[in-house]
Amino acid sequence: MTGATRYDPRQFKALTWFDATAAFAEGRDTPRAYLERCLEAVDAREPVVQAFAALNRETARTAADASTARWKDGKPLSPIDGMPVGIKDLLETKDMPTQLGCAAMTGNFPKHDNAAVWALRQAGAVIFGKTVTAELGGNHPGPTTNPFDPARTPGGSSSGSAAAVAAGFMPAAIGSQVGGSIIRPAAFCGNFALKPSQGGIHRGERQATSMSTHGPHAGSIEDMWQVAIEVASRCGGDPGRAGIQGPMTTPAPVKPNRLILLETDGWARTDADSHGAMDSLLDCLRSAGVEILRRGDHPLIENLERALVGAGDLANTITAWENRWTLRNLIDTKGEGVSERIKARIGAVEALGPDDYRHLLLRREQLRAAWRALASVADAFLTFACPGPAPLWPGDAPGQPLAKLPTGDAVFNTPSSLAGAPAVTMPMLAVNGLPVGVQVMGQDGDDARMTGLARWISGSIDPVIVG
Amino acid sequence: MTGATRYDPRQFKALTWFDATAAFAEGRDTPRAYLERCLEAVDAREPVVQAFAALNRETARTAADASTARWKDGKPLSPIDGMPVGIKDLLETKDMPTQLGCAAMTGNFPKHDNAAVWALRQAGAVIFGKTVTAELGGNHPGPTTNPFDPARTPGGSSSGSAAAVAAGFMPAAIGSQVGGSIIRPAAFCGNFALKPSQGGIHRGERQATSMSTHGPHAGSIEDMWQVAIEVASRCGGDPGRAGIQGPMTTPAPVKPNRLILLETDGWARTDADSHGAMDSLLDCLRSAGVEILRRGDHPLIENLERALVGAGDLANTITAWENRWTLRNLIDTKGEGVSERIKARIGAVEALGPDDYRHLLLRREQLRAAWRALASVADAFLTFACPGPAPLWPGDAPGQPLAKLPTGDAVFNTPSSLAGAPAVTMPMLAVNGLPVGVQVMGQDGDDARMTGLARWISGSIDPVIVG
Repeated sequence: MTGATRYDPRQFKALTWFDATAAFAEGRDTPRAYLERCLEAVDAREPVVQAFAALNRETARTAADASTARWKDGKPLSPIDGMPVGIKDLLETKDMPTQLGCAAMTGNFPKHDNAAVWALRQAGAVIFGKTVTAELGGNHPGPTTNPFDPARTPGGSSSGSAAAVAAGFMPAAIGSQVGGSIIRPAAFCGNFALKPSQGGIHRGERQATSMSTHGPHAGSIEDMWQVAIEVASRCGGDPGRAGIQGPMTTPAPVKPNRLILLETDGWARTDADSHGAMDSLLDCLRSAGVEILRRGDHPLIENLERALVGAGDLANTITAWENRWTLRNLIDTKGEGVSERIKARIGAVEALGPDDYRHLLLRREQLRAAWRALASVADAFLTFACPGPAPLWPGDAPGQPLAKLPTGDAVFNTPSSLAGAPAVTMPMLAVNGLPVGVQVMGQDGDDARMTGLARWISGSIDPVIVG
Repeated sequence: MTGATRYDPRQFKALTWFDATAAFAEGRDTPRAYLERCLEAVDAREPVVQAFAALNRETARTAADASTARWKDGKPLSPIDGMPVGIKDLLETKDMPTQLGCAAMTGNFPKHDNAAVWALRQAGAVIFGKTVTAELGGNHPGPTTNPFDPARTPGGSSSGSAAAVAAGFMPAAIGSQVGGSIIRPAAFCGNFALKPSQGGIHRGERQATSMSTHGPHAGSIEDMWQVAIEVASRCGGDPGRAGIQGPMTTPAPVKPNRLILLETDGWARTDADSHGAMDSLLDCLRSAGVEILRRGDHPLIENLERALVGAGDLANTITAWENRWTLRNLIDTKGEGVSERIKARIGAVEALGPDDYRHLLLRREQLRAAWRALASVADAFLTFACPGPAPLWPGDAPGQPLAKLPTGDAVFNTPSSLAGAPAVTMPMLAVNGLPVGVQVMGQDGDDARMTGLARWISGSIDPVIVG
């Protein structure tokens, strides 16, 4: 494992912002100096990590200087004034290209900011760079490597956002998820991350699918929430949606009384060491007085588990159908710049019609009903955020069929995407020297409550180390 | 009224397609010959009507020839194979520019088709031209005039689609509505038109507002439905929505037992002659055995009328907030090409925040509940589709404040837009020589049923002529 660094949650210290601002207020540190430390980390590790699709050091420095002046005057725009934040390269930024990890989009440079980017700038954040996305938010990987082992995937499609936070390049970054593109890479990279309730953060002009969300990756749960609420309080949710609501500082820790352990199709796809780690974590939770329910304990849990069988196929087919305009239009006009993975994806749904899609929507609605039916049975769902540590990614083998899951398996992520439910992943497990995330998931609108639960769990239970 | 043609529904014969295809099948006529007749009409009247933002005669002729060959072989792709259809210039077309009636978009030429355009081509339709839209689908007018009086507005924002159908340039055209942009111009121009249930026809990549829909204008209810169902059966509804469903030929006429006459804020804004015409129409309906309910007859009708007070402001504010990303981005990058009307519109909502928007959504949800509560009380709602005939439009007066409603008043249209409800307008009234539409509106998903009701009304009740 050349270049691998064994992940030990007792020693690993992620870059954080929330505990740095007191020094800005007191004049012992400045956002500009903080940024320079980030840039030093980039200089040291970016050649291997390759988290960035674009990096604009000069506009970042100018923004950090302006923030430094505001802190000096005692007038920061928000608690994240000066925070370096990476932006997944699907979201438009007026000062950097937006190339979506796709050769066909090379040179694409809309001169405006996506809604979340606009909101971050209003809050004083330093837009630090564009982070690598798998092609068009799918699973054809970019160059980013896992910061704990460059032979492994960082996950995707928010590959660069997850890796940049793990590598200490920045305290937070914006990712986006349709199937598992925030929670999975965050889990493989030891981030905290929030996949908001559907519609939680305004997507700006990127509105064409029914299950996509924008959300923060961060080195701490405090920074994760602060970024989410600073953005949502400025640009709101998607059209027709209320958007994330909650306190303007991180929700206080909330100890759950009962959690539902969800197995999903992922249970059988997860390695024994990770299961061992999860068993230990569950024991710790029980010792702390948290009741754990699972299938067999309640007919409605069994009902949901059954509704979740095949969730990955359901989610992928819905999204492929919904993406067909964008993808077909791109393939028709610039097909040579689109990967074979994307072409295969659209090809697979070309035979579907509106009646097929309606049937998929009905299955999703039934799944949502099964999800909602458990709202009063426990405080949240809990499960893996990824099926074990990040897999090795040696690249596609020449002459062989394309690897199926080059950025890992979203099996634990599609349930919350289908449910439109908020999910928070925490770096609670270390398995054979690599991070494995554990997530809590709630009901639509429970973003703040899930953050409070995750804050209690991550603050009260020690991470489990196996192997 | 120089150039005005008195509208007499007893004599006016709109261009239709559904009754022309038998001749194609029998070899007595061809789609190419049909197209040439359309082009002759364009040559004769387009200099005054100005319905087109772009017209591609050669691609239309090529498509019509291909259709002619299919009819000759007895293998038309659909009942609308060969039908010349105009496309509102908000929707992308791969063979013509898409300039959105906005100087800032001059030269914009995406090389792909919007979902509805793609579906029309799949059905064999001849994409005949881009029809003028008020700027960006708002109310800053383009050059189009009302075919019955060039001194009057055709309505907007689907100005060109409504006028082109009225002028006999084509049997059908695609419009779009957020507030009143399909139903109002159709009503001012004597069209039939369907504003579908929200999400009824896939908007392609144009997804950024919660109340926009695409829908057909036509010279006959048969062509209106056929276009709608041919499109929806191929491209489906918006992401997450079922889309229009119904029979593959025009729904049979359905006689209503009871209709709810909705007054809305529009009642007081409508002239006496139009009210007289409506009174006569209601008498005819009663004579035919249809019971008419109105406020005072049922507490839930009174409740809905009260919920609809201020509907226009509610709809406009929701849409302005939702459009702010698109508009702000356009103004920030190409502001000199954007009208003062649009700038004023975005300026008015810049002070709003997410909490204000949530409050607006709650009011809309309450209105929807009041709307749904009447589902079993009657077969449909009935009211004016516009507050009297199309107003004169002399242009803005130099040095004076901008005219408030240059394309007419959407007061009778915002209720169905807010409710997400289907609306069908019929040319049932002629007031002082100009058309005034009457609409039926149903519940979400009632597109086919409203079409059947409108078919019965327009087929069984003679239009009323006043003045």
